[in-house]
Amino acid sequence: MSTDLQFQARESIEQVEECTGLAPKFGPDGLMPCITTDAESGEVLMLGWMNAEAFRLTIETGEAHYFSRARQVLWHKGATSGLVQKLVEARIDDDQDALWLRVAVDGSGASCHVGYRSCFYRAIPHGPQAGQALSFVEDHKTFDPVAMYGDAPNPTQL
Amino acid sequence: MSTDLQFQARESIEQVEECTGLAPKFGPDGLMPCITTDAESGEVLMLGWMNAEAFRLTIETGEAHYFSRARQVLWHKGATSGLVQKLVEARIDDDQDALWLRVAVDGSGASCHVGYRSCFYRAIPHGPQAGQALSFVEDHKTFDPVAMYGDAPNPTQL
Repeated sequence: MSTDLQFQARESIEQVEECTGLAPKFGPDGLMPCITTDAESGEVLMLGWMNAEAFRLTIETGEAHYFSRARQVLWHKGATSGLVQKLVEARIDDDQDALWLRVAVDGSGASCHVGYRSCFYRAIPHGPQAGQALSFVEDHKTFDPVAMYGDAPNPTQL
Repeated sequence: MSTDLQFQARESIEQVEECTGLAPKFGPDGLMPCITTDAESGEVLMLGWMNAEAFRLTIETGEAHYFSRARQVLWHKGATSGLVQKLVEARIDDDQDALWLRVAVDGSGASCHVGYRSCFYRAIPHGPQAGQALSFVEDHKTFDPVAMYGDAPNPTQL
């Protein structure tokens, strides 16, 4: 896979915020946060991380690639699960240090390794309800993670 | 403002992923990424960062607080601009290291210091169009940043 996408040097705030050149900023760890939403429902599916290679591959192939912080490897989302995320639209933010992908998901439409559709399957009570137990927003898993991933190590880190 | 919200220790993957206890994980810099969307339109407004204090204040007050990485201070969103973000729902992800806030925004509904509604006002062409110029998704600013922020330093860092 060629990775020909060019990034501009970051030379001024006006350039970064107001121009049409791509001048992304990765963090000290070489990673940029990426918000991924279901293009149809608008639901936030996950918050992933990309290094420059994952960013380029995502834009060039039109399929979401991330960098797995748990496994420290490039990660073509769906390579194991089949739940490939196809880009409908990619956006970058004002200071070009965060991405938003609007995607269509193959298969069951799920994106969460725990088996839920969205990784954000629990709500935190707030205001007068602050401190109460989290509530599950999704009432069932869309797939069985043991059947899908088998003995693969769980990416959650304590 | 009291900050009484209790966090649980992270003791097992099952606890973190499947239970109803709040056991957030902040990064090495003490910060957690937070996705903020417009509760009505579903549009992603911004990607912010929270330290433990900002997290607690957000949940307890029902108004979004962030930690400004540029200014290295707690930041009550809207304190200067009036564009306060009122929580409709707060969610946490599977491994409890990312937040999603669904908010209602006071005033013009904008959230971006550049003047646009969303910080994600530019799209990145992908697939066969990869490498082409970014395109503006919003065609006008909802406010004049100079009039609103005056001489305050721009938070964008090169």
